[in-house]
Amino acid sequence: MREEWRDFVGGKWETEVDVRDFIQKNYTPYDGDDSFLADATEATKKLWEQVMELSKQEKEAGGVLDMDTKIVSTITSHGAGYLNKDLEKIVGFQTDKPFKRSMQPYGGIRMAEKACADNGYTIDPEVKEFFTIHRKTHNAGVFDVYTPEMRVARSNHIITGLPDAYGRGRIIGDYRRVALYGVDFLIMDKEAQKAFTPKVMEPTNIRNREELSEQIKALKELKKLAEIYGCDISKPASNCQEAIQALYFGYLAAVKEQNGAAMSLGRTSTFIDCYAQRDLENGTFTEEEIQEFIDHFVMKLRLVKFARTPEYNQLFAGDPTWVTESLAGIGIDGRHLVTKSSFRYLHTLYNLGTSPEPNMTVLWSTQLPQGFKRFCAKVSIETSSIQYENDDLMRVTHGDDYAIACCVSSMRVGKEMQFFGARANLAKCLLYAINGGVDEVTKVQVGPKYRPITSDVLNYDEVMERYIDMMEWLADLYVNTLNIIHYMHDKYSYERLQMALHDKEVKRYFATGIAGLSVVADSLSAIKYAKVSVTRDEDGVAVDYKIEGDFPKYGNNDDRVDEIAVEIVKKFMNMVRSHYTYRESIPTTSILTITSNVTYGKNTGSTPDGRKKGEPFAPGANPMHGRDTHGALASLSSVSKLPFTEAQDGISNTFSIIPGALGKEDRVFSGDIKLDLSQQEH
Amino acid sequence: MREEWRDFVGGKWETEVDVRDFIQKNYTPYDGDDSFLADATEATKKLWEQVMELSKQEKEAGGVLDMDTKIVSTITSHGAGYLNKDLEKIVGFQTDKPFKRSMQPYGGIRMAEKACADNGYTIDPEVKEFFTIHRKTHNAGVFDVYTPEMRVARSNHIITGLPDAYGRGRIIGDYRRVALYGVDFLIMDKEAQKAFTPKVMEPTNIRNREELSEQIKALKELKKLAEIYGCDISKPASNCQEAIQALYFGYLAAVKEQNGAAMSLGRTSTFIDCYAQRDLENGTFTEEEIQEFIDHFVMKLRLVKFARTPEYNQLFAGDPTWVTESLAGIGIDGRHLVTKSSFRYLHTLYNLGTSPEPNMTVLWSTQLPQGFKRFCAKVSIETSSIQYENDDLMRVTHGDDYAIACCVSSMRVGKEMQFFGARANLAKCLLYAINGGVDEVTKVQVGPKYRPITSDVLNYDEVMERYIDMMEWLADLYVNTLNIIHYMHDKYSYERLQMALHDKEVKRYFATGIAGLSVVADSLSAIKYAKVSVTRDEDGVAVDYKIEGDFPKYGNNDDRVDEIAVEIVKKFMNMVRSHYTYRESIPTTSILTITSNVTYGKNTGSTPDGRKKGEPFAPGANPMHGRDTHGALASLSSVSKLPFTEAQDGISNTFSIIPGALGKEDRVFSGDIKLDLSQQEH
Repeated sequence: MREEWRDFVGGKWETEVDVRDFIQKNYTPYDGDDSFLADATEATKKLWEQVMELSKQEKEAGGVLDMDTKIVSTITSHGAGYLNKDLEKIVGFQTDKPFKRSMQPYGGIRMAEKACADNGYTIDPEVKEFFTIHRKTHNAGVFDVYTPEMRVARSNHIITGLPDAYGRGRIIGDYRRVALYGVDFLIMDKEAQKAFTPKVMEPTNIRNREELSEQIKALKELKKLAEIYGCDISKPASNCQEAIQALYFGYLAAVKEQNGAAMSLGRTSTFIDCYAQRDLENGTFTEEEIQEFIDHFVMKLRLVKFARTPEYNQLFAGDPTWVTESLAGIGIDGRHLVTKSSFRYLHTLYNLGTSPEPNMTVLWSTQLPQGFKRFCAKVSIETSSIQYENDDLMRVTHGDDYAIACCVSSMRVGKEMQFFGARANLAKCLLYAINGGVDEVTKVQVGPKYRPITSDVLNYDEVMERYIDMMEWLADLYVNTLNIIHYMHDKYSYERLQMALHDKEVKRYFATGIAGLSVVADSLSAIKYAKVSVTRDEDGVAVDYKIEGDFPKYGNNDDRVDEIAVEIVKKFMNMVRSHYTYRESIPTTSILTITSNVTYGKNTGSTPDGRKKGEPFAPGANPMHGRDTHGALASLSSVSKLPFTEAQDGISNTFSIIPGALGKEDRVFSGDIKLDLSQQEH
Repeated sequence: MREEWRDFVGGKWETEVDVRDFIQKNYTPYDGDDSFLADATEATKKLWEQVMELSKQEKEAGGVLDMDTKIVSTITSHGAGYLNKDLEKIVGFQTDKPFKRSMQPYGGIRMAEKACADNGYTIDPEVKEFFTIHRKTHNAGVFDVYTPEMRVARSNHIITGLPDAYGRGRIIGDYRRVALYGVDFLIMDKEAQKAFTPKVMEPTNIRNREELSEQIKALKELKKLAEIYGCDISKPASNCQEAIQALYFGYLAAVKEQNGAAMSLGRTSTFIDCYAQRDLENGTFTEEEIQEFIDHFVMKLRLVKFARTPEYNQLFAGDPTWVTESLAGIGIDGRHLVTKSSFRYLHTLYNLGTSPEPNMTVLWSTQLPQGFKRFCAKVSIETSSIQYENDDLMRVTHGDDYAIACCVSSMRVGKEMQFFGARANLAKCLLYAINGGVDEVTKVQVGPKYRPITSDVLNYDEVMERYIDMMEWLADLYVNTLNIIHYMHDKYSYERLQMALHDKEVKRYFATGIAGLSVVADSLSAIKYAKVSVTRDEDGVAVDYKIEGDFPKYGNNDDRVDEIAVEIVKKFMNMVRSHYTYRESIPTTSILTITSNVTYGKNTGSTPDGRKKGEPFAPGANPMHGRDTHGALASLSSVSKLPFTEAQDGISNTFSIIPGALGKEDRVFSGDIKLDLSQQEH
């Protein structure tokens, strides 16, 4: 066994890349409480004060403290950057200093230019010229291929938030591999993968071989990145600090190359704990030291920043990065995956104070140990900074080494990835069904010129028939738009480093998304169970609706309407499935909008459920605000009817409760949470 | 009818792009002699003197007078350049001055850098960095995907001259379209093509749509290029001068974008004659003026220059561009396609003096009018600057609007193109068959480890069996290597402008090539009909051969050996056909080496036909020098047995004869030339 691996239990993981096997053989489940945790060190406090001061300056400067305008970000583009070199136990910034945002034009030069301009910076004209004339970007490629129909659908907000001008994200490199194996082993592994590709050079094989070459180059650059900071990650990490540092270099290389909306971290705490536990037992490090490494690591993750435009920040409510870390969960052998480091990660919320990033996500199960559940409840109450997701549900599909990308997208680390697809506005689609494809806000013919509904009172069967036709059109257009986006992203902004930290054969999910589900369910319920009359403008476009009588509303555990919601999800998902999807990807959908529901609502006219033009949609799969009148349990029950198999990319329910509702004083809340309960306002 | 088209006979060509239809309806066959031709004007003489002076300076400067080291060549990268603005009737240079070579790194930055360095120039470091880090090149893409086997085969010269570090060329834009329709019409046409692509966005369709977008952008840049010179080519040309100028701008844009080995012109003279004839009849221009336009046009074509490396120039014996213009031929309606302008083009060889470029290629037929045949004979005798190709043969496959790219590659103009594939060294392959895949020069195991031949005397059946196996290996490797090259050329160095001057649906030929055919035929004949013993070195590698007895030699109209040559061609072609070829291209092969046969021979060991290590092969399909002892007719007869259907990319026979052999005094030579008789030493 390699010297760096001394004291570890060996196995399959020694000879082939298999981080899960390493974890399973080497982790120490922890059933105790939080009493062992160590407070922030003086160094940690000093560094964090410095961060707070810089944050203040950044805010005063209008949101951005410094930006690159000339250097194009690559893994090795910048020299070393520090807050305070002497105090930092984990090092590395995206540029040569903290709070300086890098320039990443591969996704789109106009976006990069605008991000500079809107923050008062001017991009170097030579860089602009080069990326305009000689080096095509993802954005340029996409717009070269879009059809006029796609452009008009996009600008009328029936398909929205498409990653055609920013990175698609939703790919999690298995950054743990860098620590466990060292980069040289990973390069060797990739070389071997390349050697065993098919002999026939048809385009798919050529593309795969080229990608493997790019991955190998990225790994070589990753080694150089570490060298810039005086570190050698060519070999495996030999202790906890080195492991965290190597893992972080992997992540850092990824964010230096890619500015995806969500650049998630994976599931690292229990992996790191294998090193921490060994170091504690060997007396290499103390608890204080280990907590300090984790604190400094998390501090770095909090300082990941991208150059964004105001429009982007508006859509995503701020400047989020979704550096999601997935904690805990249950192993398929029945052992829980909680370790002391699961506690330590959450403890950073005390040592550094609360923060939305990294997005600490607990993979919740009824079987989690009581001590951890109790600690989670405490942290939730005191920091409002934990996201919970249902491990019992996801484990069935993904096993016990998956992680969450962004908010709810689950994927096996290093084995699965996602083509992120933002979402289709199903509420607007319903209005298109009523108006024969004419947009109710812009009056533009966006959808097909199907017959509009001309009656004064809406008939359920008629509306449903038209709606299904219009959804068919939308699914077709939406999937083909995404096919273009992902083809071009691979072509012009391929995630070299992140994919280098994946297996050769990767399962790809083709993620679509739905917005406005509760609006649609309630609208159709109103049409079915009440009397909905149409108000048309001078052009004959239905612009408002009058409801007479009551109707069942989604969010009250009433099957009459809940089943409509389920039916819509199933139907749309099957429509998506009936289309070609890029790169043999597996179609999924999500019911997930955590903040962008406000923007979607703003661009959607009045709907037959009584919602007025411009009013926000409910987030994700939430019932419309105020309509779930039968209590929290009924509300949650409605949501929980939505079939995960038909919305495998995740169903999100933003659920705000006052801390006291989690239990009296510190009694733990231990219900079976079926859904993502995100207290974070992402 | 549009004003610019006044007096032309209308037809299908008016409403859709169909240059052939225009020519057929509007050209005036000319049966007369050369007595109408006009001499060079004073302006022409002055300009040409200036060119001669610059040529002298270029030679004195070591081959290159000036080079770009900072500006990357694009269609619109440079300001206007002139020899003498007041005298030039046709304008436009690749850069802002004559004899200044442009920088074209899309094919490969190292090649561009080396071309500079070897000529004493230094490429701008920022450009180098950009094309190394951010803008991948064709060359980089290819080498990312090559297998180790391909690399070793390449460096051992069994596959040679691959266009993996320079432009593939062999694509002829239909530059006539620019003149006949104007760019706006062509853009409209491409927009319409793009509008009618399939709705499903799978990779092939996405690629095609992106290419159409790039073509449209290139056409817009073409308009700008004309504007830089104060010309408006958005509309059709309205006279002969404008037509030549517009056509030339099309060609100029192509050579500003691409530095393919062969950047051929097409078949333009009879097209141009439609305008010349109209202008003569209308009194718009005199014969002197028309000849001056053509002289100035040809002068520009002679000044097309690329930045090349010494290795490249060595392989291709100089600094060739293969600006091939195809003249004459017979129409499928039986009328010959000779016009006064066919004479005028050839007459430039007098007005400007002889020159290998543009490569004036007469599409020869027994049915050509006597006056033209007589003139060709005269020009050949006096200038040694005409290439002849067999129209009667090629017309069957390609109709009457094809042209020659490079030396022998025939293709319908604007409807067909070629993926150029250089060639496989079949003579070396025979040695690999004997040595079990070990290279006879480098002693490296290049081919598969098949059993070598161990007997002292070679047995025909045994050698043939091994040879077929080794050819199978070679065909497989060769085709897959080319698949990579053409995929990457499309990806990183797509011929936007040239393809913009093609139809939407293009027939693509996948051109392979054979080197060393006569060596192989004679070697196998020697083994079969004489006694060939093997000399092996200390490693057991066969390095020389001793022949006892006589044997039939290819080039003497002896079926015993000629049939071996035919069989080898057929077999290899069928092996090529049995592999996947990129982009649904149609496999072809050529038997064509006009100068590179010297290099191929240099890298090939002694062969069983008595040829010694390092000695040149015969060019193309030629018999080995000195072995065709039965006279010219027997030699030509052997070559003519090679089936064109199995070597559709062309069979070349370099045939040097003293002028007197063409006929006594000025009696015309009028035999049926079945083959390319190239007097040029390309």
